[in-house]
Amino acid sequence: MDENSSKTGGAKSGRRLRSGGRAANTARRGDTLFKQSPWRLPVNHDRPIEPLSEDGVIAIHNGAMHILEEIGIEFLNEEAQQLFKDAGCKVDGTNVKMGRDWVMDMIAKVPRQFTITPRNPDHEITIGGNHILFGNVSSPPNYYDLDLGHKIAGTREQCANLLKLSQYFNCIHFVGGYPVEPVDIHASIRHLDVIYDKLTLTDKVAHAYALGKERIEDVMEMVKIAAGLSEAAFQSKPHMFTNINSTSPLKHDHPMIDGSLRMIRRGQAVVVTPFTLAGAMAPVTMTGAVTLSIAEALSAIALFQYVKPGCPCVIGTFTSNVDMKSGAPAFGTAEYMRATQITGQMARYYDMPMRASGVCAANIPDGQSIWETSNSLWSAVQSGTNMVYHAAGWLEGGLIASPEKFIMDCEMLQIIQRYMEPDIWDAQPDAIAIDAIREVGASGHYFGIQHTQDRYQSAFHEPFVSDWRNFEAWEAAGAIRTPERANKLFKDIIATFQAPPMPADRHEELLAFVDRRKAEGGAPTDF
Amino acid sequence: MDENSSKTGGAKSGRRLRSGGRAANTARRGDTLFKQSPWRLPVNHDRPIEPLSEDGVIAIHNGAMHILEEIGIEFLNEEAQQLFKDAGCKVDGTNVKMGRDWVMDMIAKVPRQFTITPRNPDHEITIGGNHILFGNVSSPPNYYDLDLGHKIAGTREQCANLLKLSQYFNCIHFVGGYPVEPVDIHASIRHLDVIYDKLTLTDKVAHAYALGKERIEDVMEMVKIAAGLSEAAFQSKPHMFTNINSTSPLKHDHPMIDGSLRMIRRGQAVVVTPFTLAGAMAPVTMTGAVTLSIAEALSAIALFQYVKPGCPCVIGTFTSNVDMKSGAPAFGTAEYMRATQITGQMARYYDMPMRASGVCAANIPDGQSIWETSNSLWSAVQSGTNMVYHAAGWLEGGLIASPEKFIMDCEMLQIIQRYMEPDIWDAQPDAIAIDAIREVGASGHYFGIQHTQDRYQSAFHEPFVSDWRNFEAWEAAGAIRTPERANKLFKDIIATFQAPPMPADRHEELLAFVDRRKAEGGAPTDF
Repeated sequence: MDENSSKTGGAKSGRRLRSGGRAANTARRGDTLFKQSPWRLPVNHDRPIEPLSEDGVIAIHNGAMHILEEIGIEFLNEEAQQLFKDAGCKVDGTNVKMGRDWVMDMIAKVPRQFTITPRNPDHEITIGGNHILFGNVSSPPNYYDLDLGHKIAGTREQCANLLKLSQYFNCIHFVGGYPVEPVDIHASIRHLDVIYDKLTLTDKVAHAYALGKERIEDVMEMVKIAAGLSEAAFQSKPHMFTNINSTSPLKHDHPMIDGSLRMIRRGQAVVVTPFTLAGAMAPVTMTGAVTLSIAEALSAIALFQYVKPGCPCVIGTFTSNVDMKSGAPAFGTAEYMRATQITGQMARYYDMPMRASGVCAANIPDGQSIWETSNSLWSAVQSGTNMVYHAAGWLEGGLIASPEKFIMDCEMLQIIQRYMEPDIWDAQPDAIAIDAIREVGASGHYFGIQHTQDRYQSAFHEPFVSDWRNFEAWEAAGAIRTPERANKLFKDIIATFQAPPMPADRHEELLAFVDRRKAEGGAPTDF
Repeated sequence: MDENSSKTGGAKSGRRLRSGGRAANTARRGDTLFKQSPWRLPVNHDRPIEPLSEDGVIAIHNGAMHILEEIGIEFLNEEAQQLFKDAGCKVDGTNVKMGRDWVMDMIAKVPRQFTITPRNPDHEITIGGNHILFGNVSSPPNYYDLDLGHKIAGTREQCANLLKLSQYFNCIHFVGGYPVEPVDIHASIRHLDVIYDKLTLTDKVAHAYALGKERIEDVMEMVKIAAGLSEAAFQSKPHMFTNINSTSPLKHDHPMIDGSLRMIRRGQAVVVTPFTLAGAMAPVTMTGAVTLSIAEALSAIALFQYVKPGCPCVIGTFTSNVDMKSGAPAFGTAEYMRATQITGQMARYYDMPMRASGVCAANIPDGQSIWETSNSLWSAVQSGTNMVYHAAGWLEGGLIASPEKFIMDCEMLQIIQRYMEPDIWDAQPDAIAIDAIREVGASGHYFGIQHTQDRYQSAFHEPFVSDWRNFEAWEAAGAIRTPERANKLFKDIIATFQAPPMPADRHEELLAFVDRRKAEGGAPTDF
């Protein structure tokens, strides 16, 4: 049994890397805490909500093409400038203008659907088509939980705990980013420690930040080691992904394009997500903000397809309005919902997979955080999106990660994923149940009849943090509110957490890689 | 200025019945508390979510017809039995079987759309088409607020306060039922006091319970007096509505059918809402429960159309699953959402208006209450329903009414109603804003430009109970949680509430009616 080497700086997760069958792992993983929904890849059967007419879709498309042809996007990355030149685009310094025919030719190469395979192939995911997948909160620099009672800068231990939650919940399909940024680790080596934690505490699809050559290449190496992949096998299909943002308006910076090129050249997936706040770095109209977002996203995706035709790309949206009093982003608003749905229409127009988010502006996991998050989640579902980022644990517009919020969000995610299961609306004769209706008649009860007995154990989804007892029973049991119940579940899950197994040799190699890279200084920083 | 007469038992609302223009009323109504959305009738532009295929719709229809033809519905009301006989249906004691041709002929007469006009014609509503309207919580026997901190039986004062909230919020379009059942008033005269309060504290469309001849006829009389209507004018179009339930499975009781017949014969509207809990009084499958619900609802609506062809009717749904541990109703679940959407498909198949609900199982207004309510509200919107009952203030599966929940729900209702405003997805050139995008370029900011300045004041909906400040500012201001903010708003609204004006002569007549009916003993009770 390999304990965590003290050389890595001592992640306090106490993980044990034992062998054993999956069934044994499941039992040890504390599924006795409550009955959670099984791992599966949800399929969204519903027709998306599409507020725009066909003319509206064309108007946004034409607007985006006009931006690309006549205004241009600033690519600060010099390699990208050269590539665009080679492709026949008009490059003037950092300004790149590209013709719509070329853009549409490039965009046509984006695969409609692709897989990403993590180190545990049972957790392989499919991006695109009518699949919809959910990931954890990523990137907040701060943490809040009920025991602390206030907001503090993120630590490695909190990050590791949120990784454990991401692994634990079957309703979380990929592990995006750092669930909280552990600022107690120096930025030069932070990626080494967090990805070590991510790859040992989870066996789901992992994300890496595209922040400089060293960080992205280190992570690719670690993913290969953890999965026991040769370079050829690694490149043969996607095993990880990154997400990049443009710098709105109208710019792509150096590191994110650099990181993306490294990823796509080695067969890995890239999500391109502009961050367009209407009235701030985008027009104050939602369709204007979406138009800008589309132009920025397509410019990068077109470049990637030029470099590596058919490479797996996803178009992302993070379009919202601002609070006009403060200029701060507002989330889960009506405007946010419609912008997400409109982007879904555009993603279908371009026939490419899409990413959206579960988000809120609220500071703590109370009622406001839930209606804002619920609105953003339902708009994601209604948009036909394929990936939903930040779907568990997000607070304060992305500045805080919270385990209670994570748990509460997972309740919503389980409901949404149950919602997609077609057995609910089965209209076969046995479900219409005329015989049962006749049997019970006008004076009976359905509970005892065979038709009910045969079905009730799987007919209805059971929540795990909701309290469905009546008021008196709930009050007598201590009147525990939702965030407090979530807090207890959080602690129980962490206390009983069992990391997924990793072969000892891979673990050794991973530790050795981390140690070597740390000795070499990790990624360059100017502090 | 007429003060509230002490003879009515002293509703402590301190309402003043002054004259004055609407603008003056608006100002006095404390709109300075915060900027709420204006009164308007929302239109639901989106295509509904329709999980069932056409075959599924037909299967439910055929199932419902089979129930009506072969099993029959028990009508305990003897007048109804005779009417069905006259119509050629097969009546055997209380069992009524009706042929599908006759049922479909009757159903075809239901108006697709109709108005209901309250005493203030500016608050007239349209039921049907693509309109969607929201009403307050109705009928819980208990009350909870944060100051009490526990659950108590409802009182007249609490009922009056919730009526004030229903009047205050423009996002509430009709005043359903008793927002909390005031058990401190004897049941024989309760309807007189509560409807007096309802008609003086509000000027929106009012509901009356169909619970016996006296109650329904008293309320019709009071609505006439309050609106200054002759009997002919009252009957000329709908001025009020009632909602009845079947007694699932397969029964309609005496008082509710009796009350409905009195209402339709005098031109008023009836909503027919079975209460079908899958696994309890309905099949454990959602499609089976909906089939039973449809059969029960159509049987009554067919009767009403036979008696008064073209009378305004609405088909209601209150189909959910149970908590398999306790048998208690579960709300806001995936199963509930799909049952609501399926019922929407059936309502469109029968081409009649529909009613759904905003509901939850949670005991207090915390996170759980919000995701459950949000799920039910969004399923109502997605179902294409025309009326949403209980949309503000509901807790504990309908056993508790809460002002904080009311306020928090109104935040969600305002967002939903904003969500339906097409300006958000305007894709005209001015909204696509290419000129603005060119003007700002790659290094500017959108806040200061004219395009933004011209639009920002109305571009984005402002919430009124959400706190969008950052964590530090929120914490420094006292770390007030959502229900506490709602509690404060509740008190502010009540403190500044101004009842809508009523002409003094009508008020006198209303008081006199109430006094006389009380002296006569009100409605008969056996206690």
